[in-house]
Amino acid sequence: MPFELGIASYTFREFTLEETIAMTQRTGIKKLCVKSMHMPLDATPEELRQRAGKVRNAGIDLYGGGVIYMKTPEEVEHAFTYAGITGMRVIVGVPEHGLLELCNKKVKQTGIKLAIHNHGPGDKHYPTPESAYELVKDMDPRMGLCVDIGHTLRIGKDPVEDTAKYLDRVHDIHLKDEDKAEESGKTCEIGRGVMDIPGFLQMLLDKKYSNVVSFEFEKDGKDPLAGLAESIGYVRGVLRMLTSS
Amino acid sequence: MPFELGIASYTFREFTLEETIAMTQRTGIKKLCVKSMHMPLDATPEELRQRAGKVRNAGIDLYGGGVIYMKTPEEVEHAFTYAGITGMRVIVGVPEHGLLELCNKKVKQTGIKLAIHNHGPGDKHYPTPESAYELVKDMDPRMGLCVDIGHTLRIGKDPVEDTAKYLDRVHDIHLKDEDKAEESGKTCEIGRGVMDIPGFLQMLLDKKYSNVVSFEFEKDGKDPLAGLAESIGYVRGVLRMLTSS
Repeated sequence: MPFELGIASYTFREFTLEETIAMTQRTGIKKLCVKSMHMPLDATPEELRQRAGKVRNAGIDLYGGGVIYMKTPEEVEHAFTYAGITGMRVIVGVPEHGLLELCNKKVKQTGIKLAIHNHGPGDKHYPTPESAYELVKDMDPRMGLCVDIGHTLRIGKDPVEDTAKYLDRVHDIHLKDEDKAEESGKTCEIGRGVMDIPGFLQMLLDKKYSNVVSFEFEKDGKDPLAGLAESIGYVRGVLRMLTSS
Repeated sequence: MPFELGIASYTFREFTLEETIAMTQRTGIKKLCVKSMHMPLDATPEELRQRAGKVRNAGIDLYGGGVIYMKTPEEVEHAFTYAGITGMRVIVGVPEHGLLELCNKKVKQTGIKLAIHNHGPGDKHYPTPESAYELVKDMDPRMGLCVDIGHTLRIGKDPVEDTAKYLDRVHDIHLKDEDKAEESGKTCEIGRGVMDIPGFLQMLLDKKYSNVVSFEFEKDGKDPLAGLAESIGYVRGVLRMLTSS
């Protein structure tokens, strides 16, 4: 399979880093994109190294961090420093439009990718994958997108088409299901909603997408493991069928 | 789909009936085969009715009970009375060979099916599906099997072939995965082991199996929900692919 599965630690936002690691291990997933409650943006370099070490010592690849919001040049500088200290290879971020040139410079300087995250209806900065793509398409190729297929569906776009269209710049994916393809849609266990998961995964396989596909399970914040595990099982079952024929 | 998915409540053996119902509801599964710790064999008829009512009031079909061991004629009589009071349609049981004629009589009398459970290596009564089939094949058609595909694999038989061969008498199935196809095999999350789950489900679909397929997740007895949910997700993902082509 050209890509690997990961987990966005926002799923475990009500839990400590240690609990996040333990639950990630139970699922058998080996890649983690950490959110700030697990890797605080204002932590000292020593604490960041210590926390990143805990993830890696558990046999989990700390491939990225986010979503990180960047409203000032200082926040851009800090995000790349933070990612560098912890060894992240991709920042899932939401920079103000006026900071994209600085982000581009930092990407070139550090080699760390920026994956701009679309948040759907209500997001003034990057409502759709297209809105981010248009702004970065002439920049360094490491300036790209983290396509959140749930928010893409909620804004009335086709996640399969939109992801395929911008795939050369897709550096991360948030995989989820929604109970309806409307702004008021709520995330649910993958397989129970309206998302075309087989079609989406088939497209990634066809186009040889080679970055991470991360589960971001937003339901049941206080007890997410069962729904996350069901979602992971579903995706593994579909992938088993897609890759064995 | 010709068959429905269920859960064998042995999965929740460390939990109360109320906890079992709550966890079953979270998985979205609507059929339950209860084990005696949740529906005590020595409970009064009033208590049995009250417990069965709790299951049904939660929107869950209490389709069966077991595994129930029957070593005396009295235990056979009692098992069918117990199943009748609670409204079960199938007893997953292990009767002594000398009691099969009495079971046959009770099946005719009550209309409740008997599904004999194979326990693999070490089971002197019914090590394989074949060993049970041979003894009941000339009896009432409601005298049949609950094929446990894990124990079938561990004894060196092919679960797909063996279930297909005796399918006219298969009244229930215990679905699981094993880490290896040997006597020492341990159950694991479905999709992580060596069981040919797609092949097994394809066979059930091809042959229009129309009874229940129940998850019996034996790992993590004190905290089984995540592994059960992952297993359910995997099976749903595979079934989505098998039924959409």
